[in-house]
Amino acid sequence: MDDKKISIAVIKRLPRYYRYLSDLLDAGITKISSKELSERMDLTASQVRQDFNCFGGFGQQGYGYNVRKLYEEIAEILGIEQAYDVVMVGAGNMGQAVAKYDNFKRRGYNLNAIFDINPDVVGNTIAGIPVYHLDDMVEYIKTHKTDIVTLTVPAKVGTTIVDMIGGLGIKGIWNFSYADLHEAAEKYGIIVENVHLSDSLMILGYRLHTEK
Amino acid sequence: MDDKKISIAVIKRLPRYYRYLSDLLDAGITKISSKELSERMDLTASQVRQDFNCFGGFGQQGYGYNVRKLYEEIAEILGIEQAYDVVMVGAGNMGQAVAKYDNFKRRGYNLNAIFDINPDVVGNTIAGIPVYHLDDMVEYIKTHKTDIVTLTVPAKVGTTIVDMIGGLGIKGIWNFSYADLHEAAEKYGIIVENVHLSDSLMILGYRLHTEK
Repeated sequence: MDDKKISIAVIKRLPRYYRYLSDLLDAGITKISSKELSERMDLTASQVRQDFNCFGGFGQQGYGYNVRKLYEEIAEILGIEQAYDVVMVGAGNMGQAVAKYDNFKRRGYNLNAIFDINPDVVGNTIAGIPVYHLDDMVEYIKTHKTDIVTLTVPAKVGTTIVDMIGGLGIKGIWNFSYADLHEAAEKYGIIVENVHLSDSLMILGYRLHTEK
Repeated sequence: MDDKKISIAVIKRLPRYYRYLSDLLDAGITKISSKELSERMDLTASQVRQDFNCFGGFGQQGYGYNVRKLYEEIAEILGIEQAYDVVMVGAGNMGQAVAKYDNFKRRGYNLNAIFDINPDVVGNTIAGIPVYHLDDMVEYIKTHKTDIVTLTVPAKVGTTIVDMIGGLGIKGIWNFSYADLHEAAEKYGIIVENVHLSDSLMILGYRLHTEK
């Protein structure tokens, strides 16, 4: 893979390519043209070719792409084979839903512990994962390898959590809260990836009232 | 608002602007410069000015933006004031989490009914919303105004649901499933907005292994 900076727009399409190619492999399809792939993905064929060129090709134009090779190379670019140790803060509705998603484990997302302050959940397990009190989080992280903290907490406590985990060696935050954490996280060199459902809903609303 | 096509990258930033401005209003802040706003949002000041120019300005450079005016105009662009009648298909973990999100109601997202096939949930309510059998969905939509269908179903049934609701007047699908629905939805003129948690997780993984 080239060291040149790849645009975030291209990066964001990679998981979609990855999923499509995975479906194609499951269906026993070994070759695909940029035209076919682009139609399935609602992109133009030239966009697909451009995207793949960013990473140094993968195929011969006119002959189609080798599905397995493409799949494996995209997996490598995405770092799919890596495993991460994760703790989650927030055992509310969203936290529970995320904890119960079996799929994430296949992506190397190993959820080891959940922290909350609610006495109804502390001491229990969710999908087999123990729920501890938030007061024990820092000690837990100090004594258990932890790469990612998943935040499913109310917006007002988001920054507080970042300050609690800053300096403990956390690499990334998967942020479902509406707290904007980039300033706090930057201080500690932590990467933040946001999932903001309300934003997605607003974009759907925008599209409904402009495209319709 | 101008009729010119606004890029999707700009649109995707609007909910974030909207949330920031909402926070500023709550904090009693009435004026903000593009520099301050950009720092809070991890953008450049010129990007903020460019974004706002897409919609025809909103402020006088050098004097800062009027927070309330900006907030109201962005709300109008996003169509925040509109209300939508929604049904959800899928009462699993993610469906339950989304149904329980109080926040969405404030965005005009009125969830009226949930459909599933699981006898353990059909006939019950989730967050006060009745859960009906999927077999009753088409009749329900025919007799109850429905703008949006939220899909929290396994990937393999996504397209089937689209075919069931196609032609019934549904305007949008808020798709949490891993089914890629754009081809099916296009046929019926339905707009699809996706929330793909695994994609977000893959992007976090990519960033961890490339930026670190």
